[in-house]
Amino acid sequence: MYFYREDLINVIVPDKPDPAAAKVLQETLGGRFGEMRTMMQFFFQSSNFRGTAKPYQDLIRGVFLEEISHVELVQHTINQLLTGSGDPMPGNSGVDGAPLNEAIKHANPHHFIMGAQSSLPVDAAGNPWNGNYVYSHGNLISDLLDNLVLESTGVLQKSRIYEMSTNKTFRETLAFLIVRDNAHQNAFAKALETLGVQWGKLFPVPNYDINKYPECRKYVELGYHNAQFNFRLDATQIAEIFSGQTPSRNGGTLEVVDPPAGFPVPVMPELPNEHSPGLNDLNA
Amino acid sequence: MYFYREDLINVIVPDKPDPAAAKVLQETLGGRFGEMRTMMQFFFQSSNFRGTAKPYQDLIRGVFLEEISHVELVQHTINQLLTGSGDPMPGNSGVDGAPLNEAIKHANPHHFIMGAQSSLPVDAAGNPWNGNYVYSHGNLISDLLDNLVLESTGVLQKSRIYEMSTNKTFRETLAFLIVRDNAHQNAFAKALETLGVQWGKLFPVPNYDINKYPECRKYVELGYHNAQFNFRLDATQIAEIFSGQTPSRNGGTLEVVDPPAGFPVPVMPELPNEHSPGLNDLNA
Amino acid sequence: MYFYREDLINVIVPDKPDPAAAKVLQETLGGRFGEMRTMMQFFFQSSNFRGTAKPYQDLIRGVFLEEISHVELVQHTINQLLTGSGDPMPGNSGVDGAPLNEAIKHANPHHFIMGAQSSLPVDAAGNPWNGNYVYSHGNLISDLLDNLVLESTGVLQKSRIYEMSTNKTFRETLAFLIVRDNAHQNAFAKALETLGVQWGKLFPVPNYDINKYPECRKYVELGYHNAQFNFRLDATQIAEIFSGQTPSRNGGTLEVVDPPAGFPVPVMPELPNEHSPGLNDLNA
Amino acid sequence: MYFYREDLINVIVPDKPDPAAAKVLQETLGGRFGEMRTMMQFFFQSSNFRGTAKPYQDLIRGVFLEEISHVELVQHTINQLLTGSGDPMPGNSGVDGAPLNEAIKHANPHHFIMGAQSSLPVDAAGNPWNGNYVYSHGNLISDLLDNLVLESTGVLQKSRIYEMSTNKTFRETLAFLIVRDNAHQNAFAKALETLGVQWGKLFPVPNYDINKYPECRKYVELGYHNAQFNFRLDATQIAEIFSGQTPSRNGGTLEVVDPPAGFPVPVMPELPNEHSPGLNDLNA
Amino acid sequence: MYFYREDLINVIVPDKPDPAAAKVLQETLGGRFGEMRTMMQFFFQSSNFRGTAKPYQDLIRGVFLEEISHVELVQHTINQLLTGSGDPMPGNSGVDGAPLNEAIKHANPHHFIMGAQSSLPVDAAGNPWNGNYVYSHGNLISDLLDNLVLESTGVLQKSRIYEMSTNKTFRETLAFLIVRDNAHQNAFAKALETLGVQWGKLFPVPNYDINKYPECRKYVELGYHNAQFNFRLDATQIAEIFSGQTPSRNGGTLEVVDPPAGFPVPVMPELPNEHSPGLNDLNA
Amino acid sequence: MYFYREDLINVIVPDKPDPAAAKVLQETLGGRFGEMRTMMQFFFQSSNFRGTAKPYQDLIRGVFLEEISHVELVQHTINQLLTGSGDPMPGNSGVDGAPLNEAIKHANPHHFIMGAQSSLPVDAAGNPWNGNYVYSHGNLISDLLDNLVLESTGVLQKSRIYEMSTNKTFRETLAFLIVRDNAHQNAFAKALETLGVQWGKLFPVPNYDINKYPECRKYVELGYHNAQFNFRLDATQIAEIFSGQTPSRNGGTLEVVDPPAGFPVPVMPELPNEHSPGLNDLNA
Repeated sequence: MYFYREDLINVIVPDKPDPAAAKVLQETLGGRFGEMRTMMQFFFQSSNFRGTAKPYQDLIRGVFLEEISHVELVQHTINQLLTGSGDPMPGNSGVDGAPLNEAIKHANPHHFIMGAQSSLPVDAAGNPWNGNYVYSHGNLISDLLDNLVLESTGVLQKSRIYEMSTNKTFRETLAFLIVRDNAHQNAFAKALETLGVQWGKLFPVPNYDINKYPECRKYVELGYHNAQFNFRLDATQIAEIFSGQTPSRNGGTLEVVDPPAGFPVPVMPELPNEHSPGLNDLNA
Repeated sequence: MYFYREDLINVIVPDKPDPAAAKVLQETLGGRFGEMRTMMQFFFQSSNFRGTAKPYQDLIRGVFLEEISHVELVQHTINQLLTGSGDPMPGNSGVDGAPLNEAIKHANPHHFIMGAQSSLPVDAAGNPWNGNYVYSHGNLISDLLDNLVLESTGVLQKSRIYEMSTNKTFRETLAFLIVRDNAHQNAFAKALETLGVQWGKLFPVPNYDINKYPECRKYVELGYHNAQFNFRLDATQIAEIFSGQTPSRNGGTLEVVDPPAGFPVPVMPELPNEHSPGLNDLNA
Repeated sequence: MYFYREDLINVIVPDKPDPAAAKVLQETLGGRFGEMRTMMQFFFQSSNFRGTAKPYQDLIRGVFLEEISHVELVQHTINQLLTGSGDPMPGNSGVDGAPLNEAIKHANPHHFIMGAQSSLPVDAAGNPWNGNYVYSHGNLISDLLDNLVLESTGVLQKSRIYEMSTNKTFRETLAFLIVRDNAHQNAFAKALETLGVQWGKLFPVPNYDINKYPECRKYVELGYHNAQFNFRLDATQIAEIFSGQTPSRNGGTLEVVDPPAGFPVPVMPELPNEHSPGLNDLNA
Repeated sequence: MYFYREDLINVIVPDKPDPAAAKVLQETLGGRFGEMRTMMQFFFQSSNFRGTAKPYQDLIRGVFLEEISHVELVQHTINQLLTGSGDPMPGNSGVDGAPLNEAIKHANPHHFIMGAQSSLPVDAAGNPWNGNYVYSHGNLISDLLDNLVLESTGVLQKSRIYEMSTNKTFRETLAFLIVRDNAHQNAFAKALETLGVQWGKLFPVPNYDINKYPECRKYVELGYHNAQFNFRLDATQIAEIFSGQTPSRNGGTLEVVDPPAGFPVPVMPELPNEHSPGLNDLNA
Repeated sequence: MYFYREDLINVIVPDKPDPAAAKVLQETLGGRFGEMRTMMQFFFQSSNFRGTAKPYQDLIRGVFLEEISHVELVQHTINQLLTGSGDPMPGNSGVDGAPLNEAIKHANPHHFIMGAQSSLPVDAAGNPWNGNYVYSHGNLISDLLDNLVLESTGVLQKSRIYEMSTNKTFRETLAFLIVRDNAHQNAFAKALETLGVQWGKLFPVPNYDINKYPECRKYVELGYHNAQFNFRLDATQIAEIFSGQTPSRNGGTLEVVDPPAGFPVPVMPELPNEHSPGLNDLNA
Repeated sequence: MYFYREDLINVIVPDKPDPAAAKVLQETLGGRFGEMRTMMQFFFQSSNFRGTAKPYQDLIRGVFLEEISHVELVQHTINQLLTGSGDPMPGNSGVDGAPLNEAIKHANPHHFIMGAQSSLPVDAAGNPWNGNYVYSHGNLISDLLDNLVLESTGVLQKSRIYEMSTNKTFRETLAFLIVRDNAHQNAFAKALETLGVQWGKLFPVPNYDINKYPECRKYVELGYHNAQFNFRLDATQIAEIFSGQTPSRNGGTLEVVDPPAGFPVPVMPELPNEHSPGLNDLNA
């Protein structure tokens, strides 16, 4: 069973609205290698686990638990990037009479039509998330190799998306997730190490230069690239795998730690031009 | 942030394998009105919430939290229904030399090909779950009405699926979920009541006769149709809505309660004929 | 604007339920070459028509109008094939305690889960109808050639589906539609003839032997393979194309005629085991 | 059976081409809550209707009939918004040698590639219409609640799309449809009222301010928000539901009336730069 | 079995990067009427061929073989159009600190996120290629008519895409493919001619004016519109169909000829801002 | 450019029709881990290759070339499994008057409706192949790791499908492909070895026991698990990677060799009950 405390796993840094950035960040939420996929893939793999090699199941489930918080973090980041786009008043009262005309130019129009300037389960091209993204092979080695590809591609794609806007809200979330994907890459690489693989200098993939992504630095300094947050309320055997020397050539020691203290969930303003939430309508 | 305790929200009752039942039960997991949709729809709606009507947000999120456990429960039910289908040994060593020949006759072949006799993010016809199932309208009344349709259809479809097998594993999970969907129907109907609607005798939809679904009786006697489980580790304002007289003509008082004590997560046996988990291969 | 008279375009012949036949007949409703596609393709082509060659636009629209009735006819045929499958009572009161257990064996389970033993916008494999089936090329010759392929494939697929059951409800509807698709094949072939093509003995495709599909005979004797029904309440120039010698080697003269007199729309019984329509629940 | 008179249900107001507006208006045609969905959902629900509560069936079918005209209206509106985009001559003869270079900047490129500047069965993000949008639950209350969500979301989304351009062709069609969706919302809300629900001040959802959408005013003054157009050539029992006090807090009396007199279907010019219709090619 | 020589079937003409052109050219690769569809459709039709009319099978397979080279040509054209977009260095070192900010404005963001400025199996609207595009009817006349529509639409769409940019890389590839699609149109029209059809002046569809697409001229002068390239290493009976008078009103004689001599496959530069190929990372 | 010799890469062993086996074998053709995916994934990766590490590009392309032959082999295997199902004569002349009634019971109905008892680009559950299966990451390490997962899952799934029928046509093709996927697994594992990885005893995944899959034995004895067939007509640098000690614990030396001599492409009989090819119709 799953329990919740109303805290985000990382901070939402304020900056101006940027609907074009919100559009591309959707890849990180609902794309083929986004957080919804990692969340659901690890959910299915941990529930479908066979046999008694419990530490591996605990490892996969442990990453799954964090991914729920990642989905939530990206949802809020997208909402922040969208909120306040366009003229705040509905109908023909905007600057040029069309409050959203400019806002949608480089945006996903569904951000303004389906929802009220808020996140969607779609990717950067507007394709809805699809269950066929999830691979639960029922063979532990295949699952671990697949998860390793998934986390590596997570870092890779985020490092590319990072270059699409200088918006601070956007880059802070990406930087945090790049470092965490790096940690999860280490987790699955380490699990394969316990099965006899030696990685040499292969990881991290890609070998991102921290000077190019300065927002990442503080998370690396906190050791987040070598840490696994523990969201279990009961015991877990994850440390039987996630401990000792990192499989990354960047070095360090893997360690299971407590999650971050938590950051406030933003309270989003009402948007009359989107009839959201629309209770004022009711009380008028 | 999300925390976990390794307990299922309801019991998995043992019975014989029944791959045909597993196939249709997938609708409850990955169908248009299944648990993955309710989980993701309420996740997006609660993260995308605008304005300060916190009790409504807490209500939607509260139901979301339980839906994660529902997804997990259905995954394990499907796994139980599949496990042990066919001859246990791989290759040409089965009774007629084709261990899975009979097992797949009325089954979803992906249960045996994609995974190792385990659950998938698809519906009863084998279509993968799709992000376009999720509606987060950004207008509270639209969201509540939509959720009401969703939970009503949840009961409706489960009462139909129930008739497709007498397998005990299958029916126990369906019965529990029918009663819980009923409770969630009450939750959203009650929320609309606070906005001025009077439902008369409309609910529950459908008005299922508990004598036709005897496994439901114990859950009704436990009051599960009028209860909301609280999975929050911090405070919640959900009881400002979910309390007082039920909107259902079946009567009773709505109450926020602690979750069930929890039930053991099954340890699934290895399946050599599916190379699962495949570590013996490695150690051979 | 579109007007309606509550009459089916052909008779629904009674026979026993046959869910397996209903499953494959879905191809004719929601398949890539089914009636929903012809209906929507000709709808888009006639609305998107450019230029002043009105008789061609009237021809395409004329066929579109009939296709709406075809969709309705197939919906009712599927409903008839499904209605009464399984035990009529819900829950654990069936013969073996699972009223739908046998019914779904070779059926599309969505016929019993999504709807109450009724038609769906899907194909014979359960894939939902997709807008990418519709081709409106914006070039008249391309549109006419495409429509010719569409109607030819319509006959071809229906002649194959016909062989999958001897159910009379099933075969009567298929036979009527085979002959009507033949007429529409003639319509588009004739339109290309007016642009200079000579077809030789190419049509009909396929050259079905009426002795193999005896239900077709009466429709051929009525001249339905060379007739275009006129559903216009105002004038139409369709006869400028659809008249004179048929392009088919079977011979005859094309003629625009009044639609059939119409056949009663079946009143479908309630299904308590599907909670349909569920008003008795309300009045209980 | 379905009959046709070549008249649009509302006027197409002329204005300049606006491909960006055409792109977002596609949501109203082929989106999850667009006119194609309402048309097909009500078509399936009315054909799949069970039992003898004929007035409800007539109500659902009555709305379906109007939706066919809505689809046609939006097709023509999109065509008008697209026609004349870019340089009229093909190939390398345009201003900068690329006649469509500028036109496609904020457009759906399929408007210019798949069709000849004409409508498509897709949504604002370019996703094809999907049969899984259609819900025909086989339970009357579920169907009515679902239809109510559908029509409410119809108004909601159209009021948001309205803000994306001041183009008159675009806004007039949206304004007409907003008022008609409001009427259909009243229809389904009233049907549930006959089953015992009292809506209080809940509707309309959203409670759009007519001063913000001035094009709506004349339709409200014509009473279109409380009227149901009757497209039946035979008798209908729709008025047993659709009559008396409106369920909306805006007041008024529901009334079944004749459809509008009809408006001319535009004759669209040829487009040599799209080879449309291409008969001149043939005659050259 | 399939053999390869590292040569492109046509030249890649150098020009500046143009991501907007790359986006629309995707239609020619992964669209409903693009080269992936022709390739796969003819592959399935030739493998699924029944009966002994070998020349028709050889014709379909012959076109299939060339389509593999067309797919490769369009992949390289798109890669050329994308390569070098944006600032070459990763992270915060670009001109405005966001190297890809400008590049993605009118681009498909997946070109920069999924791949490293390279081609994808998607269409111009970003929809992934779908197996339902492929029609292998199992009836030779239906297959030939369908292929004729396919090649005609190929020319039609390419002539429209041509107008979207004056980029030389873009237009050269389109011009070559327009002429080759014209040849394949002739191939399938001729095959139907052998079955008794006389086409009059119908083809080519569309009747493109070579003066409007000057890059086409040299390919027409080479006779490419009336030639079929022979990629067989063994004998083929294709010339039993593809010979004699062309079915096109443009005249000429059909002839089976050797493929072009071949053009160099471009060696694409590394892209550090996309971590591609990323081996320098490894060696750093 | 691509050249062809009409030979299959392996033998089609004759056996009785088995439509149920044909249905599940579709996974190997059009499934997420089937031959169409490997073919298209390696096609895109080799065309999109960046930088000068030519041996890796040659390796990926070399495997791509073989995959085209694999697609062709599976198409013909499925055709063989389907051909002759049901009664050979059309219409009402079969044993029970419905020639295909029995044939479709456990079959994919599209095998008989869409095509004439022939292969389709779909998976075992009838879902069409989707472009989103293809991953071309633009980062060599990600691509190699992904390809390794792909080939491992290829073996895994084929070993499971093998157990679903004892049909000889079916099992021979699966056995050949299991051994070839094993070779390709070795290819990508070896490529990663050159980048510094040591695999220990991890491969093959799964560690299939050749005694359970006796048809595999002769291919292993031929050394096919350690061979790479060379389909290049010009030089290739593939042997710079694919040579030396295999990365598999089964031992042996990797070697680039000539392709098999080739096996006859079956000539499939006409099927009058499917109107295929339908030329007799024409000549009648």
